[in-house]
Amino acid sequence: MTETHPFDGAIQLDTIDGNTRRGKTHPEWANMVGPFGGITSAALIHAIETHPECLGEPLALTINFAAPIADGDYDISLRAARTNRTNQHWVAELSQDGDVKTTATALFGVRRDTWGDTEAQPPSVPQPEQLTMGGPEAVVVWARLYDMRFAEGAIPGEDAQPSPSSTSTLWVRDRAQRRVDYPALAALCDVFFPRAFLRRGAVLAAGTISMTTYFHADQPQLDALGGDYVLATAHANRFSNGYFDQSAQVWSRGGALLATTHQIVYFKG
Amino acid sequence: MTETHPFDGAIQLDTIDGNTRRGKTHPEWANMVGPFGGITSAALIHAIETHPECLGEPLALTINFAAPIADGDYDISLRAARTNRTNQHWVAELSQDGDVKTTATALFGVRRDTWGDTEAQPPSVPQPEQLTMGGPEAVVVWARLYDMRFAEGAIPGEDAQPSPSSTSTLWVRDRAQRRVDYPALAALCDVFFPRAFLRRGAVLAAGTISMTTYFHADQPQLDALGGDYVLATAHANRFSNGYFDQSAQVWSRGGALLATTHQIVYFKG
Repeated sequence: MTETHPFDGAIQLDTIDGNTRRGKTHPEWANMVGPFGGITSAALIHAIETHPECLGEPLALTINFAAPIADGDYDISLRAARTNRTNQHWVAELSQDGDVKTTATALFGVRRDTWGDTEAQPPSVPQPEQLTMGGPEAVVVWARLYDMRFAEGAIPGEDAQPSPSSTSTLWVRDRAQRRVDYPALAALCDVFFPRAFLRRGAVLAAGTISMTTYFHADQPQLDALGGDYVLATAHANRFSNGYFDQSAQVWSRGGALLATTHQIVYFKG
Repeated sequence: MTETHPFDGAIQLDTIDGNTRRGKTHPEWANMVGPFGGITSAALIHAIETHPECLGEPLALTINFAAPIADGDYDISLRAARTNRTNQHWVAELSQDGDVKTTATALFGVRRDTWGDTEAQPPSVPQPEQLTMGGPEAVVVWARLYDMRFAEGAIPGEDAQPSPSSTSTLWVRDRAQRRVDYPALAALCDVFFPRAFLRRGAVLAAGTISMTTYFHADQPQLDALGGDYVLATAHANRFSNGYFDQSAQVWSRGGALLATTHQIVYFKG
């Protein structure tokens, strides 16, 4: 009997009715408050991709972390608001006892063979095998499930100074090398600790409020990746009035841009 | 009697009931298919900011262009899915005769005085007065309402060649110098023609499917701007399988980063 991987356990959903799924939080995915946002994104993508009416693959997901999800069961309500010939618009909401915790919209669609090019450039960094393993495990429980190797911008320690750069670049893979599928890619897009930590040189109160991911990888690219490291890089553009925005990219070792992802984050101080 | 500016006319909404507003399309805002996406974003922001329960200012908007809006009336349904102490999560939908054309989520919130810094750098370009006026008026009607002055990456002409860069940088202001408020800023975030035009050296079938804007400007920054030019710059990261993503920034002449904005776009060929 094989043990269920914590990722698969956490995105497992029961069908309550045609458009309602029930999941539950898992303690190993705990964040500073509530669960890791990435695992909630993963559960939403999984809810849609396994819906009988789902058309195509994930192209975009916007998730709004409206309130912390409490430990225990949650319900996801789903609705295909519009189905076109080659794409489909979903509206989703995660609630607990009728209390809305998360809102989301998702775009799924059919990928067609067209001209293509990647204009962005991956950061130039050493291979993961040349870097030391170490992430924010001391701060958040869920980080223990990943193997993170920072090339730049690791989480500030006790004696850290403010940095002039908010950039973090790291190799990251599931610690048990579970394969990267769309839910896993959605989760990887949220592995970055808040950029304000680097600029302030300290761990402070901060949390993602809204996050958007564009999925560029097609299924063959994910299949080729298996459970290998991806190269994740993130930076902030502007900090002001208690909020900042982050833009990030997730690359394969072979130089494929798997996803671009953006978020707006609340911070204190 | 003063004439209503076409922008104010286009975002004018009637209250049907507590959470329903009615608007209508205006021919001067016509795009290749349906209305200019920016004016739909503007109407949604305006619907929320004038809702009696609205808390704070716009922080983020995600709008999904699910289907073309036909000429005529449309209804916007609004719901404050979650109101917290300092922020509020909205869910909105635009429909015509019960048919969903647009879905959206929006984050509004209170701006507080905190440490701040802009890490991004504005592109280095000549002042607008040194550049020639000219935008995509030949392709889209709505462009006639803006004064656009391209420093880089103008829309390809008849004899254009593919460009290695998808970047466009332009100064843009409302032609009648209507002041920039949040609805106007939301619209300015969508003034870019599809990046595929530059890379393919031709005008081709393309359209934004989902777009997210992060509003950095606070009210005093908008007030200082008045109706002046903003500097708008956009680039694509990856083109593949019939889709590409665009990331863009909108700057004030004084170097304030007013908004960052991202979108995923469908393209043919």
